[in-house]
Amino acid sequence: MLTTNPFDDDKLREECGIFGIWGAENAASFVALGLHALQHRGQEAAGITVFDGKHFHSHRAMGHVAGNFDRDDVMRKLPGRTAIGHVRYSTTGETALRNVQPLFADLAQGGFAVAHNGNLSNAMKLRRTLNRRGSIFQSTGDTEVIIHLVATSDRGNNLDKLTDALKQVEGAYSLVVLTDEGLVACRDPLGIRPLVMGKLGEATIFASETVALDVIGASYLRDVEPGELVLVNDTGIRSYRPFEKVAPRPCIFEHVYFSRPDSIAEGQSVYEVRKNIGAELAREAPVEADYVVPVPDSGVPAALGYSQASAIPFELGIIRSHYVGRTFIQPSQEVRHLGVKLKHNANSALVRGKRIVLVDDSIVRGTTSVKLVQMMRDAGAREVHMRIASPPTTHSCFYGVDTPERAKLLAAQMSVAAMADYINADSLAFISIEGLYRALGEERDNNQPQRCDACFTGNYPTSLTDLTEKEGAPSLSLVASR
Amino acid sequence: MLTTNPFDDDKLREECGIFGIWGAENAASFVALGLHALQHRGQEAAGITVFDGKHFHSHRAMGHVAGNFDRDDVMRKLPGRTAIGHVRYSTTGETALRNVQPLFADLAQGGFAVAHNGNLSNAMKLRRTLNRRGSIFQSTGDTEVIIHLVATSDRGNNLDKLTDALKQVEGAYSLVVLTDEGLVACRDPLGIRPLVMGKLGEATIFASETVALDVIGASYLRDVEPGELVLVNDTGIRSYRPFEKVAPRPCIFEHVYFSRPDSIAEGQSVYEVRKNIGAELAREAPVEADYVVPVPDSGVPAALGYSQASAIPFELGIIRSHYVGRTFIQPSQEVRHLGVKLKHNANSALVRGKRIVLVDDSIVRGTTSVKLVQMMRDAGAREVHMRIASPPTTHSCFYGVDTPERAKLLAAQMSVAAMADYINADSLAFISIEGLYRALGEERDNNQPQRCDACFTGNYPTSLTDLTEKEGAPSLSLVASR
Amino acid sequence: MLTTNPFDDDKLREECGIFGIWGAENAASFVALGLHALQHRGQEAAGITVFDGKHFHSHRAMGHVAGNFDRDDVMRKLPGRTAIGHVRYSTTGETALRNVQPLFADLAQGGFAVAHNGNLSNAMKLRRTLNRRGSIFQSTGDTEVIIHLVATSDRGNNLDKLTDALKQVEGAYSLVVLTDEGLVACRDPLGIRPLVMGKLGEATIFASETVALDVIGASYLRDVEPGELVLVNDTGIRSYRPFEKVAPRPCIFEHVYFSRPDSIAEGQSVYEVRKNIGAELAREAPVEADYVVPVPDSGVPAALGYSQASAIPFELGIIRSHYVGRTFIQPSQEVRHLGVKLKHNANSALVRGKRIVLVDDSIVRGTTSVKLVQMMRDAGAREVHMRIASPPTTHSCFYGVDTPERAKLLAAQMSVAAMADYINADSLAFISIEGLYRALGEERDNNQPQRCDACFTGNYPTSLTDLTEKEGAPSLSLVASR
Amino acid sequence: MLTTNPFDDDKLREECGIFGIWGAENAASFVALGLHALQHRGQEAAGITVFDGKHFHSHRAMGHVAGNFDRDDVMRKLPGRTAIGHVRYSTTGETALRNVQPLFADLAQGGFAVAHNGNLSNAMKLRRTLNRRGSIFQSTGDTEVIIHLVATSDRGNNLDKLTDALKQVEGAYSLVVLTDEGLVACRDPLGIRPLVMGKLGEATIFASETVALDVIGASYLRDVEPGELVLVNDTGIRSYRPFEKVAPRPCIFEHVYFSRPDSIAEGQSVYEVRKNIGAELAREAPVEADYVVPVPDSGVPAALGYSQASAIPFELGIIRSHYVGRTFIQPSQEVRHLGVKLKHNANSALVRGKRIVLVDDSIVRGTTSVKLVQMMRDAGAREVHMRIASPPTTHSCFYGVDTPERAKLLAAQMSVAAMADYINADSLAFISIEGLYRALGEERDNNQPQRCDACFTGNYPTSLTDLTEKEGAPSLSLVASR
Repeated sequence: MLTTNPFDDDKLREECGIFGIWGAENAASFVALGLHALQHRGQEAAGITVFDGKHFHSHRAMGHVAGNFDRDDVMRKLPGRTAIGHVRYSTTGETALRNVQPLFADLAQGGFAVAHNGNLSNAMKLRRTLNRRGSIFQSTGDTEVIIHLVATSDRGNNLDKLTDALKQVEGAYSLVVLTDEGLVACRDPLGIRPLVMGKLGEATIFASETVALDVIGASYLRDVEPGELVLVNDTGIRSYRPFEKVAPRPCIFEHVYFSRPDSIAEGQSVYEVRKNIGAELAREAPVEADYVVPVPDSGVPAALGYSQASAIPFELGIIRSHYVGRTFIQPSQEVRHLGVKLKHNANSALVRGKRIVLVDDSIVRGTTSVKLVQMMRDAGAREVHMRIASPPTTHSCFYGVDTPERAKLLAAQMSVAAMADYINADSLAFISIEGLYRALGEERDNNQPQRCDACFTGNYPTSLTDLTEKEGAPSLSLVASR
Repeated sequence: MLTTNPFDDDKLREECGIFGIWGAENAASFVALGLHALQHRGQEAAGITVFDGKHFHSHRAMGHVAGNFDRDDVMRKLPGRTAIGHVRYSTTGETALRNVQPLFADLAQGGFAVAHNGNLSNAMKLRRTLNRRGSIFQSTGDTEVIIHLVATSDRGNNLDKLTDALKQVEGAYSLVVLTDEGLVACRDPLGIRPLVMGKLGEATIFASETVALDVIGASYLRDVEPGELVLVNDTGIRSYRPFEKVAPRPCIFEHVYFSRPDSIAEGQSVYEVRKNIGAELAREAPVEADYVVPVPDSGVPAALGYSQASAIPFELGIIRSHYVGRTFIQPSQEVRHLGVKLKHNANSALVRGKRIVLVDDSIVRGTTSVKLVQMMRDAGAREVHMRIASPPTTHSCFYGVDTPERAKLLAAQMSVAAMADYINADSLAFISIEGLYRALGEERDNNQPQRCDACFTGNYPTSLTDLTEKEGAPSLSLVASR
Repeated sequence: MLTTNPFDDDKLREECGIFGIWGAENAASFVALGLHALQHRGQEAAGITVFDGKHFHSHRAMGHVAGNFDRDDVMRKLPGRTAIGHVRYSTTGETALRNVQPLFADLAQGGFAVAHNGNLSNAMKLRRTLNRRGSIFQSTGDTEVIIHLVATSDRGNNLDKLTDALKQVEGAYSLVVLTDEGLVACRDPLGIRPLVMGKLGEATIFASETVALDVIGASYLRDVEPGELVLVNDTGIRSYRPFEKVAPRPCIFEHVYFSRPDSIAEGQSVYEVRKNIGAELAREAPVEADYVVPVPDSGVPAALGYSQASAIPFELGIIRSHYVGRTFIQPSQEVRHLGVKLKHNANSALVRGKRIVLVDDSIVRGTTSVKLVQMMRDAGAREVHMRIASPPTTHSCFYGVDTPERAKLLAAQMSVAAMADYINADSLAFISIEGLYRALGEERDNNQPQRCDACFTGNYPTSLTDLTEKEGAPSLSLVASR
Repeated sequence: MLTTNPFDDDKLREECGIFGIWGAENAASFVALGLHALQHRGQEAAGITVFDGKHFHSHRAMGHVAGNFDRDDVMRKLPGRTAIGHVRYSTTGETALRNVQPLFADLAQGGFAVAHNGNLSNAMKLRRTLNRRGSIFQSTGDTEVIIHLVATSDRGNNLDKLTDALKQVEGAYSLVVLTDEGLVACRDPLGIRPLVMGKLGEATIFASETVALDVIGASYLRDVEPGELVLVNDTGIRSYRPFEKVAPRPCIFEHVYFSRPDSIAEGQSVYEVRKNIGAELAREAPVEADYVVPVPDSGVPAALGYSQASAIPFELGIIRSHYVGRTFIQPSQEVRHLGVKLKHNANSALVRGKRIVLVDDSIVRGTTSVKLVQMMRDAGAREVHMRIASPPTTHSCFYGVDTPERAKLLAAQMSVAAMADYINADSLAFISIEGLYRALGEERDNNQPQRCDACFTGNYPTSLTDLTEKEGAPSLSLVASR
C-alpha cells in the first residue's frame, strides 16, 4: 500500500486535488497527467469520470495515479471529450473504495459526477436530515451530501439544483461537476481552497494548481473566483455568481506547504513567497552560524531565502532518500530501537563541528523536529538553531486539511521556549503572522484578515456546525532562545 | 512494476548493491534496512538469504525493498543471526525471478549463497566450458558461474573452493558469500566496485556504501581492500589475500553519480567531491549568468560548488516531482506530442528573462539534456549554459554498470561543439578528466591511472574476453561555445 | 474467474440462493456452510452480512463460497449471533461487486440488510418513480428498489415499512432481511421461489433448500408459506400475513432442474419426483433400445426412472469430467474446430453398435443436444433416442431464472419433429405438461394451475409491468419420430 | 488454492499425468486440452514446454489447467509444432513452482525438457553421487536426477545420453522428453505406469490415458511398450528397445481407481473392468438388500456391476456436491463438531428404513468409510453392507502413487472383521486378489504376477534402494460378517 512515510505524519496534509477538462479528445489522458502533477495533494487514491456524449464511465483505484491511470486497459474504458478527476487521502480496503471520488449518481435528470476539494463543516447535520427523508448514503464522506441535496432539489436544471444545494452547505469547497449539461467548476464564497482555469487549444481546464496546467502544456487564464460557478459546454463558457458577496479568505497554508513551489497561487509564485518567508525569518530571527541547512524538500526555498538574506552559506546537511514513497515498517524489535534514518540521513562530513541553522516549513506534533535536531547533533553539529517558515500551528483545520486534534499540536501545548527545550534546539524561532503576510506583500488586517489563517490564529471564517472549537489560541511569544 | 522514470533512462545505472551481516539477532531486519539505503543501486528486484545455524532460507522479489521486506509474513520466514542481501536491476516476470540474487545452491559440502555487485568479463566463456562438463545453469547471469566453479572445485573447504573459483574469473566483483563455515566478503584485485566494512555491537557488517551502515547506526571500520577476502564466523574475523597484488582501479563514476552524496567512498565525502567538481567546472568553464540551476537531484552538489566558486546565485529553476518512482506511461496519442513534464517542471516565475547555468552530472544519450534546455527556453530563459560534472562519456562499461552500447553514447558520436548545437545550449562544457581527478585531490597518472575511468577514456583495466571494444575514444575538445 | 462451463450455458440458471440464521454463536460460519450447499443456485458471487448486537458487518466477493468464506481473516470480521447470506450469478469487476448481495443500507432507523431470491416484474417502473423523488441507486438490480421503498416509507417500525414496501412490488421474492429488530424471512403471495425454515438447537434458520439445513445438521421445520412474513428475535418467532390471500404458484422447474436431488421441495423428494418423471416418460414415449444413458449429472434420476419402468439397462454411456467448474476457453483456431469434449466424453467401448435412449432434463437452445447426439453417433451408437424430462421450454422466465430471450428458445422456434431433425436424433420426446404434474402426484388444473409453469405454457401468474410478452406459446405436438 | 477435498485424502492419488505431441500447429493448445482431460491425475500444478524450431518456451503454474492454460497471454508465448506437458500433485508456494514439470535445462548439446509420471526408487542415492561431482540441483524431486545423468553422460547424442541415464535408474517412469533432435516417449522395462500413443492427422501424440486422445479427436494407435523408447521427428517415428527384456508388470490400480472409466487401459475398457469387479464381488460376497448405492463418483461402475449381477436395484443414496473441487475449511469451532457434509449428503427420503449395499473402490485410512456408514445410518438405513471393489490395501506404493505410510493403512493394521467393526458396517467384504485378476480376464500367476499389485500383496517388482519395506503383508481373511 502506498502511504506517506512516518516522518510525513508530522505534516499537515492537503486532503485533495481536483482536475476537470472540457473539449479535448481522450480527455481522460489529460486528467491522468494533471492528477499526476497534483499527486502531492492526495496520494492514497485516485479516480476519473468521463462523459462520452451518451454515457458516463468511471474508474477509481487505491494508490497513485501512475500504476493505475497509465494502463491501457483502464484508459481505453474512459473515452470522451470531457472528464473530471480527483486524488485523495483515505484508508485502505473495499470500504474505502466507495469513498474514492469522483462520486457518481444516476439522478432522474441524468448522470451527475462530482470531485471535491475541501470540507463541509455542516455535513453531519445535513446528512441526518436527508437520511430521515429516505436518502440512502453510499459513502461516509461529506461530498455525498451535495449529491443528495441536488437529487432532492425541486429546481429545474442541474445548475439550479447545484446552486440550491450549495446554498445549504457551509465550509470549504472547490468542485468540478460533470453532467450532460456541461462541466461546472465552482469555489465556495470565501474561496478557501484554490481552483484555477486554463486553456489548451479549444479545451477549457480547471485544476487545483497551475502545475497541473504546466504538465499538459496548457496556459493559465485566471483563478475561478470565490463564489463563482463556471459552466462550460459546447455553447461556450458562462460565469454565475449566485451567492451573496463576502470578503474572500483563501488558505494561507497553501503558500507555506501544500502547493508545489512551481505553482502560482493567488497570482503569486509559491517559490518566491517561500524565499520571502525565509528572508523575513532571517530578519526576525537572525543567528550566527556556519551553514543554513534545509529540511528537504519542503524547507529548501525558505532556507535559500534565509541564506541569501543572512549571507550564511546554504548547504545540504541532510540527505533525503528517494525511496520513501512507500512506508517502510521497521521490521523487528532489534532494529526498532535504533535511530533508523530511512528518509533522512545526516551529511556528517559536512556538519561535523559546525553551527547549523535548520529551516523547516512547520512544526505539527514536533516528533520530526526532535529527530532532526538529534540527527544533527549525532553528526557532530556544534549548535543547532531551528527556524520555522510558518507561525506556530495552534488550531485544527476543518476545511479539508488533515490536522491532528488540537491536543496533539505541539504549539497548542507549550510556549516557543518550551518547544525549543522539547526539541533540544539551541534556539527556535517561528515567523510571526505579520511576517508571513509581509512575505505575501500584504499587511494583515487584524479585524478582517485577508486569508484563512485559522490554523495559526483560531480565527475561523465560517461557523463550525458539526464541530466546536472549545478554546482560543494560547498567547505565545514567537521567539525563544536558551 | 516499479521502474525508473523514462528520464532516468538517460543515466548510467549501477547494477547492484550488496549487504551482509554476521552476529545479530534477526539479521534479516538489518539487511532489509541496509538494502533500503542502497535502493538507488538497484530498484527492480531484491533478495535476502539467511542461515539460522541449520538451514538456509531465502526470499526474492521483484520490486523495491519496501513493500517486500517489511512484511511480517516474509520476515518471519528469515530467522537467524547471519544474512546477506542484494538489490538489482533486471527485467520482469518469472524468468527474471530466478536471476534475482542472492543465488543459492545446495552443494555437496552444504548450502552456498552469494550476492554479487559487478560483472565478470569472461563469464560466457567459462559458462560454455562448465556446460560441456555437465553443469546445468538455472539463471542467465554471470554470477552463477562462480557457484558452478565452486561446486566443481576439488579443493577442501568452501573458502579454498571460492578462491579457486575467483582465480578463474576476470572483471569486477564485490561479493558477500554465506556458507555454514561463515560469512565471506571479497573484492576483486582491482577493487573496481566498492565494499565497506562496519561494526554494530558484536556484529560485523559489509555493504556497498557507508549509508547502509548509517541507516542501522553501525560505525564504519574500513574498506574491504582490493583483492582481499574477509571471513567472519564465531571464531573471529580473518583476512586473506590470495591474489597477486596489482595497483587498484576503483570506479571513478561512483563519485560522479552512483553513490549517495552522504556516503564516504574511498575515504572521501561524495558530497564534498561533487562540490569540488562544481568548483573546478566554474574555473574551467566560467560564464556570465544570473542563476546557477541544478538538474535535480543529482546535479545539486555540483551546482552549489559552481555557485559558491562563481558567486552566481544558486536557485531552483527546475522542480522535480516526488512521484516518479513509478514510470508513468503517457497514456494516449493526444498527450504524447505535448512536451509533458512528468518528472521535471520549470520554475517559470524565476527563470523568465534570466541567463541560466544549468548543471547536470553527465550526458549519456543526450535526450534529457535536449528536453531540459528546451524547458528552460520555454519558460523564458534568455540564455542557457550547460555545465556537466563529468567528462564526456565515450565508452561502455563492462564492470557492472548498465551503459548503452557505444554507438548510442552522444559523446562517442560528436564533438562538444556539435553536442552544444544538438542540445540547443548557448554553451556547453564538461569538466576535464584532469579536473575530475583534481576534485578528488589527485593528479591523474596517465600511464597508470589511479581509478577505472574507462567510460571517459576507454582505458579498461582488464581484458574483455567476452566482448571486444572495436574503437578507441574519439579525440574531443571539452568546451564548446557558440 | 469461476464460471459455468459453456455447455451449461444451455441450461436455465437459478439466479440466487439465500440463507439466514438467528441465535447461534458465530452465525456467519453456518451461513457459509449453508451457502456452500446452495452453491448450485449461484456460482459467481457470494456475500454474508452479520449483526453483532451493535454493528452490521458485510463481506461480499466474486467467486465461490469456498475460497472466500472459509478464510480466517474474512470470517473473523463477521462476528455475531445473527446473519444472512446470498449466492448469485453476476458479471465480473468492480461494477458487479456493488450488485452482490446482501445489500445493506444505513437507514435513519438503523441498519437494513436484505438478500433476495427472485425477480420483481415492476422494478424498473418503481425505480423511475423513486429516482424522480431523489432516491439515488447504488446497484443496477431490482432488489435495491425494496430498500428505497423501506427508506421512504412513513410507517413506524422496520416490519411495517417492509410490508408497506412489499405491497408495492409485483413478481417473485423470497427474502431474508436483517435489522436491529430481528431477522425477517418472507415469501411473495404466490410463493414462486422456495424458502424453508429449520431449527438447530436454539437457532432458527431459513434457506432456499433443505440441503442447506442438512449440511449444518439442522432439522427441517416447515416451508415459509406464500405471503408469510416470519420475524425472529430474542422475544421469539412471530408470523404475519399482511397480503391478500391468493392461490399459490410455486415454480415447477425447481423439481425439474434447479433443486438438488437430495432436497425436499414443497414437501416432496426431488430425487423421487425426477425418477417419477423418467417413469412417466417411459410410458408416454417408449422405445426399443439397448441402454438408457443419462446426460450426467442432472439427467441421472430421470434415466434411472426410465430404466426401471422400461427394463432397459441403465449404463454410463457419457462420462463427465470433474474439472469443469472452471470454463476452459478453447485456446486456438487449430483446436477449436475439433469437436472438443471438455465436459463430456463418450464411453465408446460401451456405446459402439448399440441403440441408446439418451435422457436429459431439458432443452433450452438445443446446442448441447446437438453435440451429445453427435458424440453418441461418433462413438458408434446405432440409434440415438432423446427423451427430455420436462415439456418444451417455450417461454422466458421473469421471476428470477436466467432464460435466454424467447427467440433463442429452440422450442419457441420449431415443432418437436423439427427439433428431432435439428439435433439429429432418431426420435425425440418431451414429457407432457400433464405427465409432469402426474409425476408430482397432481392433476393439472388447466384453469388455475397449481404451479408456475409459465416457461412451458406462457401462463404467467403476475402481470409483467416492465416487460411484455408479445406472443403466446406455439401449439406443439410433444413427440416426434422420424 | 485448488486442492483435493478432505474426503479425498482417504484415496490413493496418482501423482502425475503426461502428454506430448509432435507435428501440429499450435502444439501447446493440444497439450492444454490433453492435460485438462488428465487433470484427475494431478490437480495442484501444471506445465507446458514447447520447441518452436529454434527456442524452447515454458510456462508452469500452480493450480488447474483451466484458468492457467486457456489464457491468451499464456498461450501466445508457447508457439511451435512440438510440445510436452505435465499435471502433478505438489505443495504450494515459490519453492514448489521450481518442482513443477516439465523440467527444462540448457545442456551443452541444446535444450532438454522432460515430463515424468512415476517415481525412481534409487533417486536419493544417485542424487548424492551427482552432488559430490559438482551437479547443482534446482528441484527437490526425483526427475531432475535424469537430467543431470544426461548432462554428465559422455555418449554422443541426446537419445544415447538418455538411454545411458535410464540404465542407471530403477523404479517407474513413463517419460516424454523434448530436445531439438525430436520428441522421445519411453516407459520403464516393467511398464509400471501407462503411456499410450495416438495420431491426429500428421501429428503423433503420447499421453497417460486414452481420454487425452479423445478430447482432441485423435485416434489411439497402441501402447508404448514396456522398455520401449519412441523417437519422433521430421524424419519419422523410430522405436528403440535398449533394455534387457523382462516380464511387464503394469499397475493394477489404474483399473481400480486412477484411470477415468472412459479410458482404455492395457487394451481394456476401464468401465467394463470396473463393472466386472462389481459383478465378481456380488458373486464373492452376496447379501440380501433393498438397494445398491455407489459412493459417487468412483464407485458407480462397480455398483452397477453389483446391481446387475445381484438384481438388487441401483439407486443414488448419496448425492455428491459439484462444488468441492476447492477444499472448504470448516470455519469455526461451532460448526466443526457437526457432522458436516460438504461433499456427500444422504438422499434420506430414499434410504430411510432400507437395507443398503454401499459400494466403494477402496479403503485406505478408513476415515471416509466411517463417515459414509454413519451418514447412511443417520439417514435411517436399516442395514449397511460395505463392498469394496479392490483387495485390502496393505502396502505403500513407491512407483509414483501418493500412499500414506504403511502404519496408516487400515488394512495393514487389522483384519477385515476388525475393519467391519471399526467402520460400523453390518458386513464388509473386499474382492479377492484372484477375483480382481478374473475381472481383468486373467488368472493370477502367483509366482510371476502379470501386474504390479504390490499395494495389495507387498510383491514389489523392483528393489527399493532408497526405502526398505520392513514387513510383509499380514495374512487376512477377505470377508467378515457380524
